[in-house]
Formats: sequence, structure tokens, C-alpha cells
Amino acid sequence: MRTWAILILSAIMTTTFPEITHGDEGMWLPNRLPNDYLKKTYGFEPDQAWVDHVRQACIRFGRGGSASFVSPDGLIMTNHHVGATSIAKLSDSEHDYLKDGFYAPTRDAELKCEGEELFSLVEIRDVTDQVQSAAKPGMTAADASAARDAAKSQIEKSATEETGLRPEIVTLYGGRQYHLYLYKVYTDIRLVFAPEQGIAFFGGDISNFGYPRFNLDISFFRAYENDKPVKPESYLKWCNGGVSENDLVFVVGHPYRTQRINTAAHLGLLRDVELPMILAAYNQLEVELFQFQDESEEHRRIATDMLHGVQNGRKAFKGILEGLLDENTMKAKNALEKELKAFINADPKRVAEWGDPWKDIETALNKTKDVFPAYYLAENRRMRMPTQFRVAKHLVRMAEELDKPDAERLSEYRDANLESIKRGIIATGPIYPDLEQMVLTDALMRMARMLGGDHALVKAALDGKRPAERAAELLRGCKLIDQAERERMLEGGKEAVANSKDSMIEFAKLLEVFARPLRKQIEDEWESVETDAYTRIANAMYAKYGESVYPDATGTLRFSFGTVKSYEEQNKTIPALTSIGGAFELSREHKNADPFNLPESWLKSEKKLNAAVPFNYVSTCDIIGGNSGSPTINRDGEIVGIIFDGNIQALIWDIQFTQEQARGVHVDSRAIIESLKQVYGADAMVKELVGSSM
Amino acid sequence: MRTWAILILSAIMTTTFPEITHGDEGMWLPNRLPNDYLKKTYGFEPDQAWVDHVRQACIRFGRGGSASFVSPDGLIMTNHHVGATSIAKLSDSEHDYLKDGFYAPTRDAELKCEGEELFSLVEIRDVTDQVQSAAKPGMTAADASAARDAAKSQIEKSATEETGLRPEIVTLYGGRQYHLYLYKVYTDIRLVFAPEQGIAFFGGDISNFGYPRFNLDISFFRAYENDKPVKPESYLKWCNGGVSENDLVFVVGHPYRTQRINTAAHLGLLRDVELPMILAAYNQLEVELFQFQDESEEHRRIATDMLHGVQNGRKAFKGILEGLLDENTMKAKNALEKELKAFINADPKRVAEWGDPWKDIETALNKTKDVFPAYYLAENRRMRMPTQFRVAKHLVRMAEELDKPDAERLSEYRDANLESIKRGIIATGPIYPDLEQMVLTDALMRMARMLGGDHALVKAALDGKRPAERAAELLRGCKLIDQAERERMLEGGKEAVANSKDSMIEFAKLLEVFARPLRKQIEDEWESVETDAYTRIANAMYAKYGESVYPDATGTLRFSFGTVKSYEEQNKTIPALTSIGGAFELSREHKNADPFNLPESWLKSEKKLNAAVPFNYVSTCDIIGGNSGSPTINRDGEIVGIIFDGNIQALIWDIQFTQEQARGVHVDSRAIIESLKQVYGADAMVKELVGSSM
Repeated sequence: MRTWAILILSAIMTTTFPEITHGDEGMWLPNRLPNDYLKKTYGFEPDQAWVDHVRQACIRFGRGGSASFVSPDGLIMTNHHVGATSIAKLSDSEHDYLKDGFYAPTRDAELKCEGEELFSLVEIRDVTDQVQSAAKPGMTAADASAARDAAKSQIEKSATEETGLRPEIVTLYGGRQYHLYLYKVYTDIRLVFAPEQGIAFFGGDISNFGYPRFNLDISFFRAYENDKPVKPESYLKWCNGGVSENDLVFVVGHPYRTQRINTAAHLGLLRDVELPMILAAYNQLEVELFQFQDESEEHRRIATDMLHGVQNGRKAFKGILEGLLDENTMKAKNALEKELKAFINADPKRVAEWGDPWKDIETALNKTKDVFPAYYLAENRRMRMPTQFRVAKHLVRMAEELDKPDAERLSEYRDANLESIKRGIIATGPIYPDLEQMVLTDALMRMARMLGGDHALVKAALDGKRPAERAAELLRGCKLIDQAERERMLEGGKEAVANSKDSMIEFAKLLEVFARPLRKQIEDEWESVETDAYTRIANAMYAKYGESVYPDATGTLRFSFGTVKSYEEQNKTIPALTSIGGAFELSREHKNADPFNLPESWLKSEKKLNAAVPFNYVSTCDIIGGNSGSPTINRDGEIVGIIFDGNIQALIWDIQFTQEQARGVHVDSRAIIESLKQVYGADAMVKELVGSSM
Repeated sequence: MRTWAILILSAIMTTTFPEITHGDEGMWLPNRLPNDYLKKTYGFEPDQAWVDHVRQACIRFGRGGSASFVSPDGLIMTNHHVGATSIAKLSDSEHDYLKDGFYAPTRDAELKCEGEELFSLVEIRDVTDQVQSAAKPGMTAADASAARDAAKSQIEKSATEETGLRPEIVTLYGGRQYHLYLYKVYTDIRLVFAPEQGIAFFGGDISNFGYPRFNLDISFFRAYENDKPVKPESYLKWCNGGVSENDLVFVVGHPYRTQRINTAAHLGLLRDVELPMILAAYNQLEVELFQFQDESEEHRRIATDMLHGVQNGRKAFKGILEGLLDENTMKAKNALEKELKAFINADPKRVAEWGDPWKDIETALNKTKDVFPAYYLAENRRMRMPTQFRVAKHLVRMAEELDKPDAERLSEYRDANLESIKRGIIATGPIYPDLEQMVLTDALMRMARMLGGDHALVKAALDGKRPAERAAELLRGCKLIDQAERERMLEGGKEAVANSKDSMIEFAKLLEVFARPLRKQIEDEWESVETDAYTRIANAMYAKYGESVYPDATGTLRFSFGTVKSYEEQNKTIPALTSIGGAFELSREHKNADPFNLPESWLKSEKKLNAAVPFNYVSTCDIIGGNSGSPTINRDGEIVGIIFDGNIQALIWDIQFTQEQARGVHVDSRAIIESLKQVYGADAMVKELVGSSM
């Protein structure tokens, strides 16, 4: 059992630049930075203290999304769109903090975010041997998977008892390695500052994933413990200056998921089955949300956050699909596979050890791909359901799962995660009946559209009624909108669920009949095969390319790096940096019409603002969803910005890195200070941010 | 060969109320009104002169949509949304007549609508024997279909030579009867009046198919011949008064299509294959259009008409699907089928004659249903393509089809229709490159999403490129945006097409490789079986229920009737009539925010307008898409309104009539006059409308 410091040390000594990465590619493990490449290319050698300091300052929002400590008093910076769910929960028909912004000039004005959690990584342990040795030779893929699950459960349990920290076992390289991450969890998080959505999301859905940009996509929170601001072990200082074109910068955050190891056959599933299905669901819901929000001012307020989430997802998934339709993507993938297959086939020992994992994946997919639609729908994978249904489903599942040994439970109900689930059930935030009705109707219609009216799942879900009628009936008989009722059900456990006549709980039980076997089938016939096959591919890659191949993103802390860099598009150079003045120009071009309408506060402050201050910039840093809110730091570990987006060419990064045009998009740290001062008069916060460094 | 007058006479004498219609159900042929029911229920007996007069005054827009002559000087009234395509074509970045409205106070200010056609029905002939006798016993369904096509072609050719009129053979009762309709076609149509879209479509997509409503969904045109206003054979006079609750009214127009004869299996295809596919395509395009229109004011202008069309279609198709998911719909259908099957099976002679058409339909569908997606995509059925592609496809097909004998051509290229096709190719209206790019990108993405990246059609269409990139490439190499080039290609015919290097023509040729065989397969294996089976079902229904069962809508002139009637919804009575004052109230409730923002002209005129004047009303008249613009008339044949919509409960009318809640929605004739006077100062037009009757 090695600890953090030792791992880092060994990593620094052994890491070399891998041949199969390109330029600034890579979401590197905190304990495996590509130091040779950094030194060779940028003349930069981060030492362990640098890495430790940064690692300790960078944190993760519970729901996903990145952030960092930016003051000695627990001040946290993230994106506006990462904080948006909390900001929306704090709002009501009198206070629309999402639309109008918020600022607490003093500590006692800060607003507590119920249900929010922040994860701070304390330690990483390599537990590969313990996990892998649980699976014995000769076991089926499904049995091996169950054996590994049992080992993981035991490791988590011991770690919790030993450290009191929240454990998470991270599967790296598709199963080649297992690391135990131990987190300190903060649960008292308070809102300090949010700008108006109009400037945080200036240009709206049109500009999202576009460039040039002019977005103040930031929000600030503060972590508390025992009602006092947290003194974090480490925090990032503000840079007294900023970046220029070609500067080396780092992005340190929690990329949620990439699929770069995926085989061509697996990418085919993504292209032909999963993405079309997800996009159809997103399109359907987006159209419904558009109608819903136009119905009244209140509907607009309560649906905004969901609409932005759906639009963002739609654009991201569409971008991946577009990339997959470009034959160059598949060509590159096929070339890599050919090379690796040749490497295996060149030696009978390799063949004996790794076989043909590509073929195994293809076979498993051909066997299971027709099950995916029903599985996605029954299990609500990337399929929005109303809040009360999500609560009901958790209650129904917990009633069954909590009786089982930890290792045999559905993974999300392991002890390590249970506290978060329970917190989510209680602190749902406001539940809006109109929105619940719309979302449930949409969900029922989605099932019917994707599976057909004669499918058993659809027949059970609709019970012979029109979707809207059935949704109304289910919501009428549901009391889970009431927090006390949710607490009572959680308290009552298995017996309360068994005796419940709540229509949504009954509905969740009804769907469970379909969801359980579908999930089991996918886990047994696809996911366990997938893990096994990718482990073999990763092992072969390791054998051929060396240790430093970075693993696909896993929602855990990663270091990316790159340079601030302009790019060419349709024979035009897109400059790396924009300026505050550019926002006003663009707004005027559009006659200040939605979504290019600047907030009143900005219009009033135009004369005070320095138009030349850089607003946003792009870099070659390798990022993906989940990196939102990651601090951008310079060689000195100081904040020079914050990641909030990638351009449209970067969407393909989910499956393949390129850096000809693809870029991450940052808010410039100078624009943050300039607007906090000139637009928001947030002097106390500015002082807290720059006091120690400027 | 019988003429109109004789048919009417025989119809009046023989028609009885059919047992299988309910209440005010029915879209009746002009020569087969249910006179007994009208007499019995409403004490009304329309004589032949009444029917002839109305029939002659009611006309059809070439693209679909209904209208009527409303003055002796060729003034035509239709809906704003029927006229919208022409109004949009007349607009440019300086004059947005769609948004801002238009009024020509004098004849010389009227604006000519290029490419618009109006059809006025002159005569109906029953040609059933000629068509049906062409198919000989023992022929396959496909051969019988070809033989009937040959007979139809010959009938159309003779009729054109004899009368100089435009022939159309209408297939009634799914093939039980064939009628030859002969039309006078007007091609010089000029815009006289259109209100602002804000009041024509007040409440936008939210209110569409909703009730209560407050829409001035009207526009006026004038037909010219030899540069002089047409003196129509007949026109409808304006009612000096209006309707009240429970009044009998008639709607006379051109319902486009109903599917009420469809078997349960056929409805299953609609529910599980066709509608989900169409809705997915509509959702995808709607989302793209939303982004597109937000990009600039000009984008909003050029995309508005298309967006409204897509939204309208989406709501209509969704409404049908919702109805099909209601088990009562299928129960009613199954009950009818059971009754009819029992009737057939009760007599071996009937079995010998009609067999089991339900089974035949089911068998054909099982065989062909997997072909439908590729067929819809390759043949652009309900799938939007850019204008230049549509032109290119016509050119490519005409090059091949025009060499064939008339009867062997694809039906749309028969001589009878050729003039309209050619007119459409020349007078496309403005073609907007940005919109073309967006629509083509969307179309390519749609193919990929629905068929998968490995499908041969998708591979050919994308040529290995991202959809947007491929669309840009195809549009760059296309010159069909230029009217002179379109004329040149049309002129040049087969040889010009063969030698063309135009990228869109090459693209159309490429898709033709897939579209042709798919269409042939659907025609041979499904449509000919369908026609044959529905002919047998219709014959059996005729034998059991008598002559007067009305045929499904066919885009040709039909008479519906019903009463002005309130309805119950969620325990509330929805009054039949709304008032002008209600529009102002609703607008204030929404703070005059889009889509409830009244135009400036209305806000300024509030004091002058009589708030009590009825604005819209609902009736039980049986309508469907295509009825838009149909005049609503009273017993005296006078105009009391105009149909513009159905409520959400009426969407199911496509497949089944109900009248508990389902209603058609009309603009009240009194609101038209009140607003023309008080808001628009359109005194000349008011005089022309009411001069003779008020």
C-alpha cells in the first residue's frame, strides 16, 4: 500500500513521453505527470511540492464539476454553470438569483446550499493487486466482475474505518489499474457571488461551444465547518498579471469521462445506437422545454437551468457524433488498432495472454446492442425523469439493496456512496409541480416513441392512457413533493416502501420489473466483457508504449497542460484572447437582443470598465465535460483563469484528441477582477482574492 | 360519364345517415351530402343551387390550404398561415410583410405572388368503372396497380383535350371509387391584405391547437386574369350578423388527408414506426431552427415561416400519436374490425369476394416496415430538404421520367401535374444560403442518426465528411440558386442534366440510386397491397352500412357541418366564443411578452375597438389539416367565419372522430370586420366585403 508522496516520486522518475499521444494531449493522473515532455517542450519541471499544493487546492462538486480554493478562508471559485443548480435552488418567485445574480458583501449574507457536497482529494492508494487478484483464472467475465466488486467493497470499508474519509475506487485504463481515492467531504457550502446569467452565459446556446466568447462564467462559494469558514490545507493565489499568447498553462480538474480507449466497434455503437438515442431524447425534451418556458415568466424561471443543461448536452453529444461521422476519426482509430493487433500477433505469448479483445467487444456488442434502448429507458440513463420519480426509485431500490452485503449491491448503493444518496433525497431543492408534469409526460412519450406502443415496458408505464393523462394521475397520487414525507419514507425503510400506496413509489416498483433484468443483462453480457477486454488492450498498450499512457477520464483529479493559442478557421485567424470591449460590440451588433443582451449592471458600467482587459481566451489544454470550473494556473501555480468550455472542434476530444483547431475556453483572471470591481463593487471579495498577491 | 349536376341530383336522392358515423362526423363529398341527417337533426335541407353556389366559391391553394372567393371582383380570403409562404416570399430585409403586415388600399398596390396557384373545381366525373376495369382478374397487386395507372393517365389526357381544364383523379374509399376532378387554375394571384404575424399567430406555438384563442389568422388575395381582377362564377357573401352558441355552420374546404379507414395493424405502423420517425426529424429540425433564428434578426426573418410550419407539424403529429397511445382509440378500431369481419365471415360469398384484407395489410406491413425509415429519408417524405436540392431532384427525375409514356411515370410527373412542377422550379421565391446550409446539414445528420454511419445511403450522402462540411461543399458547387440557371436546366432537359457538373444535381443523382428502388419496393409490396385491401374493406363497409359512408380526406373539396359549441375540460366549461377584449387581457397577463405581445397597431387601437366583439369560436365541424382557410358559412351560405385550427383534442381526428371535447377553431367574421375598420383602416376592403350585404 503506497501513499501519495511515494507514488509521485516514482512517477517523476519513470515517466516518459508516450509515442501515442499528440502534442499537448493528456489528462494526467496527479501522480503520473509527463515530466519529460514538459521539460523538453516547455522547459518546465514541476516538483512534488508544486503538484501537492495544486492537488490540495483543487476540489470537485458532488454532482460533477470542478472548483478550487482561492483564499485562506475557504473561498471557492467555480463556473456559473457549475454553481447554477445550487443558485437555482436558492431562488424563488421573489428572488431569481440565477437571472439577477447575487453578492454577499459580508459572511452573514452568504446563502447556504442545501444538499451540496464538495470533495477534496486527500490521498491516493494503488489497490490494483488486491482488486485484480480477487478474480481467479477460469471465472466467467460476470463472475470475475462480482469477485472484484467484493474486493473493492472490502477495501472501501477498511479505508473508511481507518481514515474516516470518503473512499472511491477508480478504475483506470479500463481495468488495468485500480486506485483508491480518499476524500474529505464538505457539506456546508454557501453562495458568495454569482453574476447575472446574461453575462455568465452571454450569447446563450448559440455561443455555447463557440469562439470568440465573452462570458463571465464564474461563481464563488465558501466552505464552512462548524459554522466557521474552512481553512483549506492549500489554496491557489491570484496571478498579479495574466497570460499572453503561447504561455504554458495548466488546467487541474475533474474531467468526467472520455472514451479514447474505445475500439472501433464500440465507437460504432456510440455513433449508431447510443448517440442517436440520446440526441432524440434531448431534442424531444428541449422542444418541450421551449414551449414550457414561454408559457409564463415563472415557467421560464423554473425551467432555465434544465433547458441550459439539455442544450449543453445536445450540443456536446452532437459534436461527438459529428466527429464520429468524419472518416478521419475512424481511420485513426483503425490504424491504432491495426498496430496494436500486429504487436500482439507478432508473439504467440502475447496472443495467449491478451487474445483478441477487439473481437470480444464486437461479439458482446452484437449480442447486446438491441437491448440498449430499453435499458437506457428503463434505467433512466441520460434520460431525464421528474424529481419525485428519482426519489421514489431510490427508495424502492434502497429497500431492496440495503439488506444485501455491500459488495452485492448495485454500485450506487454501496456504503461509500449512501450518505450522498440520502442527502440528495432530502435536499432536493424546490420541486415544481408544473415542471414535474412536463418532464414526466415527456418521459412517458419518449418510452412510447423509442420502443413502440406494444412494448411491455410502455404498456406498463402508460397503463393505456395518454402520456399527459398518465403523468397527471401519477403526480396526483404522490406525496414525495413534501420533504417531511421523504424523510418519513427514508426513515421507514423497507417496510414503509412495501406498505406505501404512493403512486410514484408504485410506479417505480412497476418499472423495476423491467429495469432490474435489463441492467443485469447489460452488466453481465456487456460491461463485464468490456472491462475484461479493455484491461487486456490497456495491458498490451502498456507493453508496447510504456507506462505513461494516460488513462481515460474517470471524474477524478487530472492535470492537463497546453498553451494559449489562436487557431485558423475557414481561412481566418481566431485570436486567442478577446476583450471586455468586444462584449459591448457584439451586443450592439445584435441590438442587445436575447441572447446577446448584456445585463443592466454591465450597460451602466461600460464607461468605468477598461475595454482592453482580456475577457476570455483559448488554449490547447486537453479537457472534457467535468473540467468546467477547473482553475487555470501558470508555472507558479497562480490563477490566470478558469476553464468554462471547449470550442466546437474540441467536442470530439471525448473520443480523440486533436489540437489543430480544437481549444479549451477560459475566463481570463483579469476580467474577473475588473468586473468584480467596476460592475459589482465587490471590493471585499477582490481584497480576499488578490490581497495576498497584488 | 356523368356530370356534376347529375351526380348531385342522384346523391341528394339516395344519401342516408350512415350508422357508423357519430354526431357531426364526416367530410362529405360535394355530391354526397348526408341530407337525411341534416334534415332530421338540424331541419336543414340544402338544395342543389345552395351546394353549387358554395362549391364554386370555394377554392384550393396549389400547395394545399383552402380559401374562398368573397367578392365579385375576385377577392380571396384564406388564413394568414396559408398565405404565409407567399407573404414571406414577397418580403426582404427591408420589408418584412410577415412580421409587419401588409395592406394594398388600391388595386395597383397589390403584390403579385410568383409561383402561386389557385384551383377552382369546375366538374366532377365518376370514372370508377374505367379505372377498375383496367385491372384484370389474376393480375398481381403491382400489375393491377400499373394497369389502373395507365387507365387514369388516358382519362386525364382525354379530359384535358376535351375541356382545357386541369384534371385530377381522386381515389376515394381507398380505391372503391375513382372520380375525375376538373379544375380551372388561376396563376396570377396578388396579395391584398395581411395582418401582423403577432395577431395572426397570437400566443404562438403555445396557443397553437389550444383554446380559448384570439387569433386574426386571415389574409386576403385577389385572382387576376389578363391583368384584370377575375369575376368568379360565384362568391360568398358576408353575413350581416354572426353566429351564436348551437348555431349550425358549414365548413367547406380541402382537408388534406385522414386515415380513418386504416386497420389496427396500419395504425400500429403509424404509432410505432412512422410517427416516431417523423417526430424525431421534426424535433431535430426545430431545435436547429431555434438556434438559427437567434443568430441574427435576418435569420429570424427568413426562418420564421419554416419554424412555424415545423412546430405546427410537430404538434399535429404528436397529437395523433397521443391519441394512438390511448387504449380507447384502438378498442374502437378493433370493435369496428370485429364487426366487419363477422359480417364477411357470415357469408361464404363475401369471404370469396373480400377475403381477409386486414390480414393482407398486416402481412405486407410486416414485410416492408423495416424499409420505411430508409424510404422516408431517401425519398424525403415529410423530411425537409433545401430548396436547391428539391429543384435538383426534380430536374434529375424529369430527365428520366419525361421520356416514358405518361402512365408509366412516377405519378407526380404525369402531364396533368407537370405545369405546377415547372412553375415551382422557376418561382422558388428567395433562396437564402444560410438557411440552405442549415437545412442540408440537418438533413444529412438526420440520415446518419436514423440509419447509422455504416448504411450505404449515409456513406454515399456524407462521403466521409461531417454533415456541415459536406453541406457546405455541396452548396458551394451548386448554381441552382440562380433563376436563370434553373430555367436553363429546365430548358436543356435530359441532355443538360446528363452533362451537368452541378454538385447538387450530382448529389441528387447519387441519392436516386437509393430512392428509386426503395420507392418501387414500397409501391409494389405495400401501396398496391394497401389499395387493394382498402378497396375490399370499403366494399364490405358499403355492403353493410350503405352508400353514404364518407371517404377519407383526399385534399379535395369536402363539406363538413356542426354547431358552435362550448366543451368541458378538467371540470371547467370552455366557452364557445372569445372576444376582442380577451386578447388584451391575456396580453396584459403575460406583460405583453412574446408570444403574447400584441402588435403596436392593436395596442394603439384598443380604445377604438369594441371589446365585446366575438374574436374566435369553436364548433363540432369535422376538419383536418388542409381545411385551414375554409370559409365557415351559415344556412344562407353567408360567411360567418373562417377555420384556422382545431383544439388539441381534435388532433386525433386524423384517425378517429370524437366530439365530446374535440373542436374546430374559427375566426369570427365580426372580428375580421371590426379589426379591418378600427385597426387597419382598410375601408376599401371592408366596403368590398360587406358592401353588398351590410
